[in-house]
Amino acid sequence: MTATDTGSAIDLSINKDRLSRAQAELARQGVDYLLVGISSDLFYLFGYEGHASERLTMLVLPRSGAAAVVVPKLESPLLRSREALAGLLVWEETEAPTALVACHIGDAVGKTIAVNDHLYSSFLLKLQDAIPGASWISANDTLKPLRMIKDAREVELLLEAGRRTDVAWEEFIASPLSGLTETQAMERLVALTRAQGLDIGFGICASGPNAASPHHHSGDRVIKHGDSVVFDWGGTLEGYTSDVTRTVHVGEPDEEFRRVYATVLAANQAALDAVKPGVACQEVDRAARTLISDAGYGNAFLHRLGHGLGLDVHEEPYLVEGNTMPLAAGMVFSDEPGIYLAGRLGVRIEDAVVCTETGGMRLNEATRELVVVG
Amino acid sequence: MTATDTGSAIDLSINKDRLSRAQAELARQGVDYLLVGISSDLFYLFGYEGHASERLTMLVLPRSGAAAVVVPKLESPLLRSREALAGLLVWEETEAPTALVACHIGDAVGKTIAVNDHLYSSFLLKLQDAIPGASWISANDTLKPLRMIKDAREVELLLEAGRRTDVAWEEFIASPLSGLTETQAMERLVALTRAQGLDIGFGICASGPNAASPHHHSGDRVIKHGDSVVFDWGGTLEGYTSDVTRTVHVGEPDEEFRRVYATVLAANQAALDAVKPGVACQEVDRAARTLISDAGYGNAFLHRLGHGLGLDVHEEPYLVEGNTMPLAAGMVFSDEPGIYLAGRLGVRIEDAVVCTETGGMRLNEATRELVVVG
Repeated sequence: MTATDTGSAIDLSINKDRLSRAQAELARQGVDYLLVGISSDLFYLFGYEGHASERLTMLVLPRSGAAAVVVPKLESPLLRSREALAGLLVWEETEAPTALVACHIGDAVGKTIAVNDHLYSSFLLKLQDAIPGASWISANDTLKPLRMIKDAREVELLLEAGRRTDVAWEEFIASPLSGLTETQAMERLVALTRAQGLDIGFGICASGPNAASPHHHSGDRVIKHGDSVVFDWGGTLEGYTSDVTRTVHVGEPDEEFRRVYATVLAANQAALDAVKPGVACQEVDRAARTLISDAGYGNAFLHRLGHGLGLDVHEEPYLVEGNTMPLAAGMVFSDEPGIYLAGRLGVRIEDAVVCTETGGMRLNEATRELVVVG
Repeated sequence: MTATDTGSAIDLSINKDRLSRAQAELARQGVDYLLVGISSDLFYLFGYEGHASERLTMLVLPRSGAAAVVVPKLESPLLRSREALAGLLVWEETEAPTALVACHIGDAVGKTIAVNDHLYSSFLLKLQDAIPGASWISANDTLKPLRMIKDAREVELLLEAGRRTDVAWEEFIASPLSGLTETQAMERLVALTRAQGLDIGFGICASGPNAASPHHHSGDRVIKHGDSVVFDWGGTLEGYTSDVTRTVHVGEPDEEFRRVYATVLAANQAALDAVKPGVACQEVDRAARTLISDAGYGNAFLHRLGHGLGLDVHEEPYLVEGNTMPLAAGMVFSDEPGIYLAGRLGVRIEDAVVCTETGGMRLNEATRELVVVG
């Protein structure tokens, strides 16, 4: 994300608009205050990244009227350029910032206060003590109508992040993998992705039997002939992240692997084909799951089809059975079916997809055909 | 930190001991349950790093009896090797994990439940709904008596992380800085630190007037002759982090800079000299602050003297006015006085220090003499 540490004039119009739309949601939902600590929510609303720590920085947004930001004195210089968005309530090292929030809000008996999902519980517990009589709710409902629908600039950044990730991948698969450890292979892919100007968000390399563990941590296992290898990684551009998974095979695969790969690839396409405004999230999951179940691998698709993608690598909307929320144009999410055969192999193929007025469009296009490497 | 994703036998004795000591603290403090999500607390107690996400992983530790861990199915393979520490309560993608925690705990009316500080508020709010009638408190009080006192192995890792950071620094200052941007300079220092086998935790490079902002974000400012430049960075070894700050000058400094530098250096030493078991945390802060105030820069020392250091880069104990807790052997913390003259310059000199039976010992030894670079 972008630091905002200069005194030079910056364009605050996007953040002004987002704060005002957040207030409209507070009014619509009958919420009195929105409290947002250091998080992607704060960056989205206020344009300040900061770093989460035991020192509280917190946006206090009432349903109407001016916003304020509680900030530790030593970080307050970083926010001076954004004072037109919110008054700064600066606290000294020996003060209690949650008391400052409580004092600013005043009597809140019977009021409803929403806090951002990633706020540390230590802060929430102190706020609940300092502001008695209020009802506390998750800010997810308030913020998801805003954050889920990406504007043109956000889609552009996600597309560009995806395009650069594609370039890194095509370079990566030009070299053999056999003999590298998972960690070494991931480091190489990370370096190529960094070379495209992306900051690195995360990376999983899972080889051979490890590929059957969807959230495997890359380790010291040496990649060898006969392995399937899953790479799941992403990089960020101005805070917006790519998230791609590709599975390769070291040496010629057998028939079973080819069958599994073809099934996952077809499921990935089936889900994409199901994307359209108005379609329930769970229907997109079902499109992929039905295809995998029909091929006899239903029990081996261990996870939901996908998650929203933006400033966070996992955010709303979630494409999972039980989520009846309809898709809308501007939503961006992953399409990542997988088949995992314990102790033997795993295949996952993941693309980022934007829902447009006419259907789903992929934001990354690294080859999905089966790649055999040395 | 170390992933634990193999089926091979691992030594669980350290974690068994820590879990049992945590239960003793629960009993001593009259707390009924400790709930710990993905965090350094979980790594400390259970040896599992994981990655924080919207999928709940949570250790449920009762005051007595067996521990359990709630874990999403797709990550459960990563925990199989630790089942001797805690039974696994595996949840499927369409289940509600907080309901699983509530069901496992049962009736909790009148009970006290401690949650780890960094747990997402979204989880705490759901738990408060699902487990009515309980009192909720921060787990910091429960865990700090354990985590603050480092054992011999922890001190060894912190010392080795410090030693490697020293090597990176000595290599770094052999090259000129003038003409690099802050970001480029930090990237070079990060690469040298990585080359020492450390994972990178964080890094600040603040040059010229930016050096007067203690938590400046490295940016595009080009470092030039006449600048003071503050570097504050650290790397981790098996989860344990170094945290060092050095300030250099590009070209020969003037008298004022030399005076400020000498004052900060003397304050750093005065604080170290004040470290001894039994001394209150605030006394160590005062030792440095008094010296800086006497030199006429009291208002320019904008922050507390230091923070504890271990698996987190900021943890207990905090060396700050108002903290009367006595130091004890095995505590590790930063000693980082600074003087910040707005719009002009900043100097900070930071070392990690362990409190031993006989006094303070630095864990890093990169030169503290004033370094003039090109």
